[in-house]
Amino acid sequence: MAGFEKYRIPPEGGFKIAKLDADDRSCFKDGKEKAQERILKLRAELAGLQEMLYAEGKQRLLVVFQAIDTGGKDGTIRAVFEGVNPQGVKVASFKAPTPLELAHDYLWRVHACVPARGEIVVFNRSHYEDVLIVRVKGWIDADETKRRYRQIRDFERMLAEEGTTILKFYLHISKDEQKERLLERIDIPEKQWKFNPADLEERKLWDDYQRAFEDALNETSAHTAPWYAIPANRNWYRNLAVLSILVDTLKGLKMSYPKQTEDLAPYRQRLLAE
Amino acid sequence: MAGFEKYRIPPEGGFKIAKLDADDRSCFKDGKEKAQERILKLRAELAGLQEMLYAEGKQRLLVVFQAIDTGGKDGTIRAVFEGVNPQGVKVASFKAPTPLELAHDYLWRVHACVPARGEIVVFNRSHYEDVLIVRVKGWIDADETKRRYRQIRDFERMLAEEGTTILKFYLHISKDEQKERLLERIDIPEKQWKFNPADLEERKLWDDYQRAFEDALNETSAHTAPWYAIPANRNWYRNLAVLSILVDTLKGLKMSYPKQTEDLAPYRQRLLAE
Repeated sequence: MAGFEKYRIPPEGGFKIAKLDADDRSCFKDGKEKAQERILKLRAELAGLQEMLYAEGKQRLLVVFQAIDTGGKDGTIRAVFEGVNPQGVKVASFKAPTPLELAHDYLWRVHACVPARGEIVVFNRSHYEDVLIVRVKGWIDADETKRRYRQIRDFERMLAEEGTTILKFYLHISKDEQKERLLERIDIPEKQWKFNPADLEERKLWDDYQRAFEDALNETSAHTAPWYAIPANRNWYRNLAVLSILVDTLKGLKMSYPKQTEDLAPYRQRLLAE
Repeated sequence: MAGFEKYRIPPEGGFKIAKLDADDRSCFKDGKEKAQERILKLRAELAGLQEMLYAEGKQRLLVVFQAIDTGGKDGTIRAVFEGVNPQGVKVASFKAPTPLELAHDYLWRVHACVPARGEIVVFNRSHYEDVLIVRVKGWIDADETKRRYRQIRDFERMLAEEGTTILKFYLHISKDEQKERLLERIDIPEKQWKFNPADLEERKLWDDYQRAFEDALNETSAHTAPWYAIPANRNWYRNLAVLSILVDTLKGLKMSYPKQTEDLAPYRQRLLAE
């Protein structure tokens, strides 16, 4: 499934959001049903790899999800991580900051949630909100945005140097797809609670958000903390892409179950002699 | 599945651990295969109920697991909660306390982890370690143990009064079953990393642990924070029992999806008119 690597944004940037087709499915042409089979297999692989990560207790994995409203962050997290032992995976959701959080620098609340050894932590939104919505709304100017890109690069480099593997996914949907999804939230009774009128105001800022995403992704994709821009109009393609990249990354960590250094034979005898 | 309610320890106590058969399967006599089918159904139900809990965002659920070493806490958590949206379920594992934790009262670290509205939090071990291992090892005396029972009752009553539903599961295995499980950890290569020689020392204190469990369960089972003592020699029976009680409890919360109070028709028109 190495094909999905093409969605990786190189450290030197050059990503053009307008050129990424949200309907693209060029890395898997066998259709939705075959994709679901593949997803089930990848999920089982992920569960096994996560168990080894946990058992080994050496490495840490941080997975960041960002997207525009209705972009599918919740759905992806669910589809990718259900089936994994909930003991080894933590999801941290970053909403509008609380007064206590606002009383600190913007990296404070995310730093508190990064993974410990053996853990996978999933960020549903993240410190990137502080160069996205904050910038689009004009709460910080161009200079501060640039400074924050540098701070974020420095922060993530430190995490990586200290042993955290980082994957960042931007889920890309089209403006038409967002309209469909907002209409669904209006029309399907069980989804209505998710509808927030403010989403329509945000939608007016579509172009600004696209620019902010493009800029942030180009400025902060690093070898050790890459961004992947995933075509996400089709849920199954999006899930397959994220799962594939995740599984490949975990395989690349070359983990192993910890070895017992002690000779266990005497313990067996003690038990059998009881 | 109301039968499993019989494992609930009444607030007035009277639970005799020696009388609980760890091999009991009197609440489900159709055997393992039928049980697995039932477990799949209950898991799907649990996933739906958890989603509603999260959507409603009003209630909180705390689920505590305690057991002797090899009792099956990890396996139960995995079997019961895999398949549930990881975003709404957090597992807190309490190991030997850190210096920072020891510098506080014993409830400090657990209080920090109790569920927020809409959340399920699972405790893998808990503040009960502080009346179990701590007592068995003689680190606190009978008076202090009694004082802690009261403190724990008060703490959990406060949580319940403030809106947290609490379920506590003691997973009961027999001494022979523990021997089998320890031998497995010695004999199966992929399980060897789990083997800890100290477990054999703990095993010598089996009777003391049984007494400590019996006492703690009788002293701290309350209407609003009941203990269930689950026969756990058979994994499938244990998983079925925990899932059944959990699902019944969530159903009893009478949750509903939040209603939209606003008329959404104008928003639909705005979107369609774009």
